[in-house]
Amino acid sequence: MRWSKSLIPTLKQVPADAEVPSHQLMIRAGFIRKLGSGSYSYLPLGWRVLNKIIGIVRDEMNAAGALEVLLPSVQPIELWQKTGRDVDYGETMARFEDRHGRLNVLAPTAEEVVTHVAAGEIKSYRQLPFNIYQISFKFRDEFRPRFGVLRSREFIMKDAYSFDADAESLEKSYRIMYDAYRRVFDRCGVPYVIVEAESGEMGGSGSHQFTVPCETGEDIIVTTENGSYAANIEKAGVDAPPPNPEAVATREKVGPPEEVHTPGVGTIEAVCKFLKTKPREMIKTLIYTAGEEGTDTVACLVRGDHDVNPEKLTQLIGHHELAAPETIESVTGAGVGFAGPAGLVEKVSKLLVDHSVAAMVAGTTGANRTDYHVRRIVPGRDFPLEGEKVVVADIRNAVEGDTREGRKLVFKHGIEVGQVFKLGAKYATRLGCEFLDENAESRTCLMGCYGIGINRIFAAAIETGHDRDGISWPVSIAPYEVLVLGASPKPEGRAAAEKLYRELRAGGVDVLYDDRDDVRPGVKFKDADLIGFPLRIVVGDRGLSEGVVEVVRRSDKEMRKVPPSEVPALVAEELAAMRAECAARANEGP
Amino acid sequence: MRWSKSLIPTLKQVPADAEVPSHQLMIRAGFIRKLGSGSYSYLPLGWRVLNKIIGIVRDEMNAAGALEVLLPSVQPIELWQKTGRDVDYGETMARFEDRHGRLNVLAPTAEEVVTHVAAGEIKSYRQLPFNIYQISFKFRDEFRPRFGVLRSREFIMKDAYSFDADAESLEKSYRIMYDAYRRVFDRCGVPYVIVEAESGEMGGSGSHQFTVPCETGEDIIVTTENGSYAANIEKAGVDAPPPNPEAVATREKVGPPEEVHTPGVGTIEAVCKFLKTKPREMIKTLIYTAGEEGTDTVACLVRGDHDVNPEKLTQLIGHHELAAPETIESVTGAGVGFAGPAGLVEKVSKLLVDHSVAAMVAGTTGANRTDYHVRRIVPGRDFPLEGEKVVVADIRNAVEGDTREGRKLVFKHGIEVGQVFKLGAKYATRLGCEFLDENAESRTCLMGCYGIGINRIFAAAIETGHDRDGISWPVSIAPYEVLVLGASPKPEGRAAAEKLYRELRAGGVDVLYDDRDDVRPGVKFKDADLIGFPLRIVVGDRGLSEGVVEVVRRSDKEMRKVPPSEVPALVAEELAAMRAECAARANEGP
Repeated sequence: MRWSKSLIPTLKQVPADAEVPSHQLMIRAGFIRKLGSGSYSYLPLGWRVLNKIIGIVRDEMNAAGALEVLLPSVQPIELWQKTGRDVDYGETMARFEDRHGRLNVLAPTAEEVVTHVAAGEIKSYRQLPFNIYQISFKFRDEFRPRFGVLRSREFIMKDAYSFDADAESLEKSYRIMYDAYRRVFDRCGVPYVIVEAESGEMGGSGSHQFTVPCETGEDIIVTTENGSYAANIEKAGVDAPPPNPEAVATREKVGPPEEVHTPGVGTIEAVCKFLKTKPREMIKTLIYTAGEEGTDTVACLVRGDHDVNPEKLTQLIGHHELAAPETIESVTGAGVGFAGPAGLVEKVSKLLVDHSVAAMVAGTTGANRTDYHVRRIVPGRDFPLEGEKVVVADIRNAVEGDTREGRKLVFKHGIEVGQVFKLGAKYATRLGCEFLDENAESRTCLMGCYGIGINRIFAAAIETGHDRDGISWPVSIAPYEVLVLGASPKPEGRAAAEKLYRELRAGGVDVLYDDRDDVRPGVKFKDADLIGFPLRIVVGDRGLSEGVVEVVRRSDKEMRKVPPSEVPALVAEELAAMRAECAARANEGP
Repeated sequence: MRWSKSLIPTLKQVPADAEVPSHQLMIRAGFIRKLGSGSYSYLPLGWRVLNKIIGIVRDEMNAAGALEVLLPSVQPIELWQKTGRDVDYGETMARFEDRHGRLNVLAPTAEEVVTHVAAGEIKSYRQLPFNIYQISFKFRDEFRPRFGVLRSREFIMKDAYSFDADAESLEKSYRIMYDAYRRVFDRCGVPYVIVEAESGEMGGSGSHQFTVPCETGEDIIVTTENGSYAANIEKAGVDAPPPNPEAVATREKVGPPEEVHTPGVGTIEAVCKFLKTKPREMIKTLIYTAGEEGTDTVACLVRGDHDVNPEKLTQLIGHHELAAPETIESVTGAGVGFAGPAGLVEKVSKLLVDHSVAAMVAGTTGANRTDYHVRRIVPGRDFPLEGEKVVVADIRNAVEGDTREGRKLVFKHGIEVGQVFKLGAKYATRLGCEFLDENAESRTCLMGCYGIGINRIFAAAIETGHDRDGISWPVSIAPYEVLVLGASPKPEGRAAAEKLYRELRAGGVDVLYDDRDDVRPGVKFKDADLIGFPLRIVVGDRGLSEGVVEVVRRSDKEMRKVPPSEVPALVAEELAAMRAECAARANEGP
């Protein structure tokens, strides 16, 4: 391809609304343009990158035996009502009424439709297992789209779904995808870690997340220092504090609870300021509703400097929501913001106490009386740590200083680029996806689902591969592998560049030729660095007078002068080395 | 691929709601499944066909120098308001309000967004010409989706857009696409004709339609018997009747007009029955509104057996709509259904008279009086054929018996698989797509647009390539080129089939192996014919006992017995011949 025949509108200015490097560089390098909030056009070079990523993903899915399909993106709402996810997705799922008054959704994912389709085709255990996938348009009406294509409304997702007869077979199918994902990210050349994950609104019994560590990522991953454990923040378990007989002994010396008038002081910060205490010395009391009918009330106690982890709560009490103000008032007898553990156990269905709270000597907390807090609430004395309704457990997010199996936890930001889930029977049960087993008895399929964010790999590669001049691509997903940069305005210089370009192209090299005659070499150099072609061949007057051209690697800017005749061989060699490097770079980890 | 590892759910029953062969066969062969009205899932074999078509289209677009991009499918309504097509598309364009209350559309096509994007990037004539295309999800909320994927709501379209500095350059860009389209359809192996077309709601100044002739097609193409002229029904021009002095002379003998009471008789059919006349002896009078403000009224006269051609009307009077009942009543002084030409010219802005009406001796028509018709209305006597407001022109659809340049017109049904348009400045003007020319003066880009219905090629190939047993694919887009059919239940027979499959696969052949062990050979043969693999290799006991396997062509069922060792060479030879045949088959024409 010739630059003059393509559309590569590079920009010098950093766009005002682009916060992260990948977003800035994608716009500056002419890869994308914004159409509206969270909506981007992919220009020729941007599409080439996406298409290369798609090629790698497709290749590895096919190699893993998955079958490509294409499912409708516009789906009847009735499908989503069967699983209740029309409610779970809320406003994030776009809906519209068609001309005949039927309600349709723009699919944010495809568990429902794929299970519906499979339910119609699966008759016998003989058809199992299989795995079908698609690479297609998805839409999520994000409340706040941001970071360019990292959190956009419209995106391309590879989503695969496995169907198995039993748990052992699901485990195998899951493992096959897990391994295929490793190959995908290895080949894409993005550094990644695999962490244990909660399955969230997907439901199911196990999940791993593939995350590219980088400062700008929205996800938080938690690892032990030695890497023996890795999970995302939603999943990461923490050790309970070690038994502390001294603290328990100290409790006996603590005086009785003391109510304090704290008018209008509701937040932890405000209470601390008012009572001159610290968040870690406070007990937060949160009231949730749970249970099939949503009529159970559950009180959760965490330290003032901790946050409840909704995923851990789901594991303990299933689906739950923060209680409505009326419920809180009726349970505590006080306005919102003044709940406390004393006397609460009789009023709720369950009392969940975080390990860290159970280990406190005493704490300050709400008095269950509007505008009052109470000091010197002692665990085990003023509220129970044992009993039928009481569970002491890990119900909070991990924080700095926590340990896991005695090892210190380390926190990193990252970009989630893929996730694999064991869904089990959740969707299959609700959508009637059954088969007859060897004994002609009807059984429910077990499913897995496996997603890759194509656009996010694009962004993650830039986040982890750029410098002040621009992007440095893994060779496998670079918009072009090689740039021939025509730096000579003279006819003979242009002819030499043209000849080299033709030779490389004839040799099957993925090459772009900067043939622009209305642009100075300096601009061409800057554009080349910005876009980040892994290999650049500069055909300039000075070099030609010495009988050489310059071959420059983008990654380390190493330059070699070689006669034009030696370029094809050198290019082949360099590209082969870069391809090998791709997987190595990916496996380096965080 | 092994059949047992894929998902190929063939059906014996013809689905009840499938009217046309392609729809029936796609479902029976396990290519697609219906999700809702006009909404289909593509199962593995269906997706393979689509993907092969996409591959051919992409290949030819790239070879023609077009640049692939990907534009958002969900677009802000404001873009469409700029061109007025939010109104033109009406309910066919799905719309939804997002969570922030903004109105979005699901794009039925992409002229607006691509022009908007180009307007942001084009600065100078030096950037022109270029052509960008995408292959992506489109949505049209059809009033009545039908014929399977031929008129579905969700589909994959290749849409390309060219940007040029002047008309001569646009002509070249158009020609490049025209030629690329020929190569696409040649390679896809579907028989097609190229007809002149009107540009319809696209606007613009020229268009060709690529149509696959077949009985079930919804489009009508019109050709002269010798093929010297070909157009679609929207465009096809017809000769005016030859001058007929005898008829003109006869007019003088016609008596005066005679009003007849026709209470409640409004349609042509009802009037003919009531007055014992024939549609061809009647004059239909239709009132339209037109003009910038929609305030002009235009009366159109066509014979009772003819239909007004909206495209021809657009060429004469621009955008127009059938007048509202109030307008008709105010213009004619009578209820709807009783308009007639006598005295009308004073009441309207323009009177359009079809050639066939101008050649009538006399006709029966509305009396401009509710519940009355009038006999013996004579052209030129009772209404003018000349004058400032009067135009005698070709304003109707061609019908059987018409000629074009003296040659008899022939009518055929067909499936439109592609269309190319010269848009000119229509979109560029409205969306500010301008450039600076050599003299640094601002000028508007001239555009072309070029669409291919990927799913329609799929259906058209089946419509034109099937027999009572199933589908016979052009080799280039068959789901698999070769089937190895394991017809032996014995271990040594299975081993022979397995060996052959492995050899072919190792040789890079696109092969499926029917390895099912729970299905009788008879079922396998029926499935093979139904799905229509171009080449089938049967490995059965009888053959093996003679040291041979059977190689069968799907197209003519020719069978050859060859030793397994000779199969790879024979397969290569047969496939090469089939590939050559593809283009020949396509070029045969209708």
